[in-house]
Amino acid sequence: MTGDPYNNQPIGVFDSGVGGLTVLKAIRDALPNENLVYLGDTARLPYGTKSPASIERYATQAAAKLQEQGIKLLVVACNTASAVALDALRETMAPIPVVGVVEPGATAAVAAHAGGRHLVLATEATVRLGAYSKAIAERDPDAEVREQACEMLVALAEEGWSGGNIARAIVRRYLEEANGHDPDTIILGCTHFPLLKDTIQAVADDHVILVDSASTTADVVRAALAAQGTSRDSGSPGSLRLLATDGATRFARVGGQFLGRSLSYSDVELVDL
Amino acid sequence: MTGDPYNNQPIGVFDSGVGGLTVLKAIRDALPNENLVYLGDTARLPYGTKSPASIERYATQAAAKLQEQGIKLLVVACNTASAVALDALRETMAPIPVVGVVEPGATAAVAAHAGGRHLVLATEATVRLGAYSKAIAERDPDAEVREQACEMLVALAEEGWSGGNIARAIVRRYLEEANGHDPDTIILGCTHFPLLKDTIQAVADDHVILVDSASTTADVVRAALAAQGTSRDSGSPGSLRLLATDGATRFARVGGQFLGRSLSYSDVELVDL
Repeated sequence: MTGDPYNNQPIGVFDSGVGGLTVLKAIRDALPNENLVYLGDTARLPYGTKSPASIERYATQAAAKLQEQGIKLLVVACNTASAVALDALRETMAPIPVVGVVEPGATAAVAAHAGGRHLVLATEATVRLGAYSKAIAERDPDAEVREQACEMLVALAEEGWSGGNIARAIVRRYLEEANGHDPDTIILGCTHFPLLKDTIQAVADDHVILVDSASTTADVVRAALAAQGTSRDSGSPGSLRLLATDGATRFARVGGQFLGRSLSYSDVELVDL
Repeated sequence: MTGDPYNNQPIGVFDSGVGGLTVLKAIRDALPNENLVYLGDTARLPYGTKSPASIERYATQAAAKLQEQGIKLLVVACNTASAVALDALRETMAPIPVVGVVEPGATAAVAAHAGGRHLVLATEATVRLGAYSKAIAERDPDAEVREQACEMLVALAEEGWSGGNIARAIVRRYLEEANGHDPDTIILGCTHFPLLKDTIQAVADDHVILVDSASTTADVVRAALAAQGTSRDSGSPGSLRLLATDGATRFARVGGQFLGRSLSYSDVELVDL
C-alpha cells in the first residue's frame, strides 16, 4: 500500500491530561515518520478519582474529537481510561483500531519476570477495576499481582516535585502500604509515574525491575499499523499537533517535562468536547 | 416576615468538590434552623488548575442547578470560584444574593491583625488572580499580602494524610517558598486547608494566627438573610440535602472528614450539570 494517502492520516493519542505525552514520545521515537495528533482532556482531569460512567463518557467524547481529525489508529494513553473504557471505545471507533496501555504494560511486566510478583502503582479507578490483574493473569497464570492506589504521586508529578525527600517519603509510604508483597517488578500503571522512575527505583529494593507501558505500547502500535498495511512510508519526519481542552499555558509548562522538550502555549490548540 | 413561606427556601452552597463542606458545617452551626442544599461539582474538580473561562462556565452551571432548587441565597464555598466568577454569578443570579468566601476571609484576616503581614495559601488559579490581595487592600491599605500556590495540600487533604511527617514536610516546603515574608497571619485560602490546620500551625511560628473563612462566611450569610428579612424563623432544625455531579461513594468517604460526621453514599444525590 505504498503511497496510499490514507497512510498519511495521523495516529491519535488521547490522555486525561499531559501524562500521556510519555507515551506520545515513545511512539514518536519508534515511528518518527508517523503524523501524530495528541488530545489532553485537561478541562476534566484527573480521571483517576472519577466514576466509571463519567470516565467512559469523557473518553468517548475525546475519541470522537480525534475521529474528526481523520485518525487511522487511536492510542488511549491513559491507564484509567484504558482500564474503564477500552471495550466501549473499540465499539464506537470500529473499524479504527484502538490500542490501550494496560495490555502492553501487562505484556512488558510478564516479559520482565515470568511467574513473578508484580506490584501495580495506579490511580484509584484503575485499581478498583483490577484491569492489570486480569491482563497479567491472561498472560501468565503463575504471576502474583497486587495493585496499590497512589493519588499523591499524580500530584507530585504535576507539581514537578519528582525528586527529593518529599517524593521519596511519599513513595516509601505507598510501598509500605503494599507491604508483605516483596515485588519482582513495579508496574508504573499511570502515565504520570515515569517522571518518578528514579525516585521509585531509589526507594524499592535493587532487584526490583520498573516497568512502564510507553515503549511496549509503541511496539503494539507499530504491529497494528503493519498488520493493516497503514504505516506511513514517506521518508519525511511526521508532524505533531497538540490539542487540549483547557489551559494551554499550563499544558505547555507541565507537558514539556513529560515530552522532554520545552513547549510554548502557542504550540497547543484549545478544543471543546 | 415571620412565617413567610419563602423563608423556608434553602440556602444553596456550592463547591468544586467536598472541601466546601467545611463552610457548610460553619453555616449549619451558626444557623441550625436554615434548610441547606449543597452541590459539589465532583465530576470536574479540581477547579484550582483550570482556566478562568472554564471555571466561570462550571460555576455558572452549578449555580443554575441550585437555582432550580429554589434557593434564597447562594454561597460560593470555593475560593477558586469566588476569586474567578463572583461578579458573573451575581449578575446571573440577581436578585438572589451571592456570598463568596474570599471577602469574608479577607475580613477575618484584617480583624486578626490590622496592618499585618498576611500569607495566603491557595490554589494556582486563586493566586494568579490576586483576589485576596485586592480584598485585603480594600479593607486595610497598610497590610502586606503574599500569596502562595499550594496544589499538593489539596491532594494531601483528599488523600486523608492531614497529619504526620509527609504533611509537615510539604507544608514546610511551601512556607519556605514564601520565605522572607515572616507572616503574622496565614489565610487558609482553599476550603480543603482547614483539614491541615494543626499541621500548618505546628510548622509555622507560634505567633502566627491561622485564619479561615468558614465562620466569617457564616456571619455574612446571617447578616444577608437578616437584611433581606429572609431568615427561617421555625424552631425546627433545618434540613440538609447533598448533591454531587459524580462519585457518591467517594463523596461520602472524603466528605465525612470535612463535615465532621460519617456519611454513606445513599446520603448523596447524583445530578447532571
